[in-house]
Amino acid sequence: MSGERTLRVRCGQTSRVLYVVGTTLSVNLCRSAPPKSKAFNVQCTPNVRFSISPTPVPGPSPSPAPLPLNNNTLLFIVMKEASMVESDSKLSVTYYGDNTEVLGKAVLHLTAIEVSLDVDADRDGVVEKNNPHKGAWTWGPEGHGAILLVNCDSEQFYHKTPDSDRKHITAVSDLNDMSPMVLRTKGPAQLPPGYKLTLHISRGDAEKVRVFRSTAGDMLSRFLGKVFFPDFVKRYPLVLDDQVLSQEVPYQEETKLYVEGLRFPDKDFDGLLKIHLSLLEPISEDFPETPIYTDTVVFRVAPWIMTPNTLEPVEVFVCSTKDNYPFLKGITGLAKKNNYKLKVCYEYKNRGDRWMQDELEFGYIDSPHQHFPVVLDSPRDGDLKDFPYDELLGKDFGYVTRVPEDEEVNSLDSFGNLEVSPPVTVNGKHYPLGRIIIGVAFPTSAHGRNMTKVVQDFLWAQKVQEPVALFSDWLYVGHVDEFMTFVPAPGPKGFRLLLASPDAGYKLFKGLQNDGHGKAKIFDGLGPDEEISVDEILDNERLKSENDYVQNCIDWNRDVLKRELGLDDDDIIDLPILFKLMEDNRAVAYYPDMVNMIVLGKELGIPKPFGPKVDGRCALEAEMTSLMEALGLNCTYIDNFASYHKLLGEVHCGSNVRRKPFELRWWNLEM
Amino acid sequence: MSGERTLRVRCGQTSRVLYVVGTTLSVNLCRSAPPKSKAFNVQCTPNVRFSISPTPVPGPSPSPAPLPLNNNTLLFIVMKEASMVESDSKLSVTYYGDNTEVLGKAVLHLTAIEVSLDVDADRDGVVEKNNPHKGAWTWGPEGHGAILLVNCDSEQFYHKTPDSDRKHITAVSDLNDMSPMVLRTKGPAQLPPGYKLTLHISRGDAEKVRVFRSTAGDMLSRFLGKVFFPDFVKRYPLVLDDQVLSQEVPYQEETKLYVEGLRFPDKDFDGLLKIHLSLLEPISEDFPETPIYTDTVVFRVAPWIMTPNTLEPVEVFVCSTKDNYPFLKGITGLAKKNNYKLKVCYEYKNRGDRWMQDELEFGYIDSPHQHFPVVLDSPRDGDLKDFPYDELLGKDFGYVTRVPEDEEVNSLDSFGNLEVSPPVTVNGKHYPLGRIIIGVAFPTSAHGRNMTKVVQDFLWAQKVQEPVALFSDWLYVGHVDEFMTFVPAPGPKGFRLLLASPDAGYKLFKGLQNDGHGKAKIFDGLGPDEEISVDEILDNERLKSENDYVQNCIDWNRDVLKRELGLDDDDIIDLPILFKLMEDNRAVAYYPDMVNMIVLGKELGIPKPFGPKVDGRCALEAEMTSLMEALGLNCTYIDNFASYHKLLGEVHCGSNVRRKPFELRWWNLEM
Repeated sequence: MSGERTLRVRCGQTSRVLYVVGTTLSVNLCRSAPPKSKAFNVQCTPNVRFSISPTPVPGPSPSPAPLPLNNNTLLFIVMKEASMVESDSKLSVTYYGDNTEVLGKAVLHLTAIEVSLDVDADRDGVVEKNNPHKGAWTWGPEGHGAILLVNCDSEQFYHKTPDSDRKHITAVSDLNDMSPMVLRTKGPAQLPPGYKLTLHISRGDAEKVRVFRSTAGDMLSRFLGKVFFPDFVKRYPLVLDDQVLSQEVPYQEETKLYVEGLRFPDKDFDGLLKIHLSLLEPISEDFPETPIYTDTVVFRVAPWIMTPNTLEPVEVFVCSTKDNYPFLKGITGLAKKNNYKLKVCYEYKNRGDRWMQDELEFGYIDSPHQHFPVVLDSPRDGDLKDFPYDELLGKDFGYVTRVPEDEEVNSLDSFGNLEVSPPVTVNGKHYPLGRIIIGVAFPTSAHGRNMTKVVQDFLWAQKVQEPVALFSDWLYVGHVDEFMTFVPAPGPKGFRLLLASPDAGYKLFKGLQNDGHGKAKIFDGLGPDEEISVDEILDNERLKSENDYVQNCIDWNRDVLKRELGLDDDDIIDLPILFKLMEDNRAVAYYPDMVNMIVLGKELGIPKPFGPKVDGRCALEAEMTSLMEALGLNCTYIDNFASYHKLLGEVHCGSNVRRKPFELRWWNLEM
Repeated sequence: MSGERTLRVRCGQTSRVLYVVGTTLSVNLCRSAPPKSKAFNVQCTPNVRFSISPTPVPGPSPSPAPLPLNNNTLLFIVMKEASMVESDSKLSVTYYGDNTEVLGKAVLHLTAIEVSLDVDADRDGVVEKNNPHKGAWTWGPEGHGAILLVNCDSEQFYHKTPDSDRKHITAVSDLNDMSPMVLRTKGPAQLPPGYKLTLHISRGDAEKVRVFRSTAGDMLSRFLGKVFFPDFVKRYPLVLDDQVLSQEVPYQEETKLYVEGLRFPDKDFDGLLKIHLSLLEPISEDFPETPIYTDTVVFRVAPWIMTPNTLEPVEVFVCSTKDNYPFLKGITGLAKKNNYKLKVCYEYKNRGDRWMQDELEFGYIDSPHQHFPVVLDSPRDGDLKDFPYDELLGKDFGYVTRVPEDEEVNSLDSFGNLEVSPPVTVNGKHYPLGRIIIGVAFPTSAHGRNMTKVVQDFLWAQKVQEPVALFSDWLYVGHVDEFMTFVPAPGPKGFRLLLASPDAGYKLFKGLQNDGHGKAKIFDGLGPDEEISVDEILDNERLKSENDYVQNCIDWNRDVLKRELGLDDDDIIDLPILFKLMEDNRAVAYYPDMVNMIVLGKELGIPKPFGPKVDGRCALEAEMTSLMEALGLNCTYIDNFASYHKLLGEVHCGSNVRRKPFELRWWNLEM
């Protein structure tokens, strides 16, 4: 509420006025004039500047000659500097009658103060002083407005819960997850009697934010805080939350405050929050105080951001089960090769649930002052369901989940069905953090499976990676990672889209047949029940028509991906993969689904396809390796036939990768 | 989904292809090439155009010499016109080996159709053909995108309910409230076997929209519809609603559809809705059909719009009670003077509740094809509570309400606390439909009364009259109409803001005292219990300090109004009105509150203030009349002392006015 404040002067009285530097006091001189007043005169001390409207006074100094008083004569008062002591500045208005006789005089004793509620509105990690743009939020490198993190990590190791669930600060390190805010004042040592500073938030915002205050020098409280917990809580008292929407704060030179975000953007929350500081003026004991000045700062809650395959891995996650030794060994080797951390979830924790991809999605939140990974826990809730909370949530590792209330969770809610593209540009529109990709039913289908609404709403509300919905309900398991992935590649886009392609598979098999390898066997070495020759595959008319259908489904998605990610056919590589249909005519991979790979920098961990051998070498691996090596990528084939493929998943389904954040900061996006 | 569609050709086969004019078929020639193919050749009938990438063919006519086949050779196919009969166009691809021997040939039999889902995207009241902008919605005179009304009126007189509550069309006139939509096709008389056209909507949109279809020529069904109701329902079957998200529609030259809006924009609904038309391709009997072409149209639901005092009145509403004859007579005279319609709500209906302003707010909804008034029913629900539904809802008179679920309704929920400004411009930002004004508690107050959240959310969500929240909780009744109103006036802004002003009141009384009228009596003629002299008023220190507080409260609002409506002091007129404080230090008008007036064009119906008389004329009326006559307005003073003022309301509280809509259409706003 910078700007003008209507002030009343009272004839025959001396009024004490508290003025906030930067504002203008507007006095209607006629309102308080004694009856029959015809002229007036204003005098003031040097710290005060005034002007008259509509009759301007020449020069800034008070004019001694009386000026004519009109019906709407306005006096504007400003002061440039804070007062040293109370009432150190004065202004008087003298009213004159027809014959310049004095009819009355109104005197103002003015005290000027400076007040500002300050945040890091320019996003450089430092709280600047009274940024003129702090009350509005805009995107882009030239944008402004402060940033808030959801305090969704847990400083506590025992009895842990996201810090945002606690109404007190449990450790000094918790302050790092909050946005610093400073209340700065300048002026006399005390506010005039009865005046108050108060911080306040709206009811709507109160469920999404908390404000704490530091009551001592930071160094001291840091020391004490570690020593004795209850004392620490006292040193950082809660100022605002959903129970306390308004609270007085001390008038002192500098008050350090900490702002904690509680909710991610969602369907009903655009992520913007306002915090107000008001100066309250007492009227008299019986009347409510009036806010005479309000300063407002705005925060945007940082979105949850996903990391595409083109970002550098930090940590690889897999499950250890009774039967997955070859798989575990393959992944371990790949991780070690590049010195990526490997985290194995053991049987006592995974209880046989090996689908590490499906239970969770890694992302992160970022601000100028702090950033950390945040796991989005899937509503899937298999036997791995406690893993994200129990094993990942921790200090500087956040946790968020969305649980549907009245929808049944289905297979499309697993996060093998939630991926993200590398950065793309579509018809001139940039998506420098890529676009989220999910799988749903055909929009024309009345009975299809869909990803649950609360998760979809959450993903769309993050805004910075606008989602694309693909059609994945044609698959038995129904995950987009069964037919697509992205790999890093040379060229301006920096990646290729890999798509499973039955056509490419049939083409490869026909080529083998033409070259006299029709008797070569798929699933060679996996036993007579599994083995089947290239000729037999090509002779199977039913299988061909099933794959024609699958190719149509994938082509439909191909067209959507080309349009929504701005891709050319040259950006897409078809991988030779066949499918077969199960109950409900829904598809599963016929042999290990090579597109369902783990991407670790230039190293690809690919499900070993057990294709037909030509000269002792698997023709599918040879084709795959040839396609990938052309992009400078290395292929490692991991045997996941018994332990994953037969259970309808592959390498990607059974692993997860936490990656480095984007170098581009999300607030620099042009939205 | 205009644009490219991936198409597969099969060597040795003839494929039937259904093509939609305006799209491009993209064929990866390598995918279907026989092994060892090195070159290819394309031939086609005249209606077909093709191009090759990356090797362009010179000229549009098929080249007879084989072209080299590369790994990513693409064939793009377009057709300019719809086919007359099925498969009337052909295209073949011949593959050659090393020595130009023919290895295989793929043949396409092409049928082209035109399909478009059409709406009034250019907002001229007519459904144009295939507007290229129909799938996106933008504001402004150059904007595009269709408009939908909430069908909140009631065609039925008996057993009435808003039409949007019924799942069928009850009268031909109901079609006028819906947005016309046309499905147009061109091509062979029938779609090839197995192909289908289907309309579909998303689950999220389905609760906000319904689509009906006309099954006969309009003239015929109009006649029949009136004759026999069940037959009528059959003639306009429901196509889409919240139970049917997708339904087949016939392939015929023109299908008339009617789109019905069900929900106003609100906190969780931005007002935009999409309707899709898809062409489904059969794969084979066992497989789900694949959408091969989708056309999308977008609608924005028209907002509910309020009408300021500067718009011309249409109808004046008042209650008749046992004790309000002078009031009723005054209002009736005013309405008759300008030939405005007068609607009196009689005692049997109002049950003694006289507060016509508080129970409801008149607004309207507008579209290029239809507009009608809509009453917003307050959650107040006094004894007048059935009036909006029972007496106003009707044919071309809509009804909407918002009822809080877990908040208690208080006096600030009455619609004397909901007003709207005339058009304003604020720092260059135009509000050509004005800004809504509501009253709430001070943001710094912990215990204040507020307008209920569901109503506030509704008002903000309408967007086109962005609300301003004032501080009205200082008033005992708590309504903004107790201290402010707008009147039409000459000058560029076209209005003045009138504010109650105790200062102006005291100034007037002091002037009277100075002129020797100190013994003149307020409430003169209302009996000795009421009468009080000017001297006594001015001697009452308590009353003065109460009015100082009130002036501070009004000045706070004055500053907000100046800032949020871009007003100067010259745009504001202070009216001489005193207040007194009741329990909780909340204020009521001391004498009839002249600002609480009814504005009917240039005629003002003002509560008769019963001020002190000078030379037989009320000094308050004289001042008021002088101020208003300077603006070209005529004042009529209406005695509402006993029947309204003593019950804490005045003329405005006891009346309501339905006004003409703005000439400016809301979709022409630049948002």
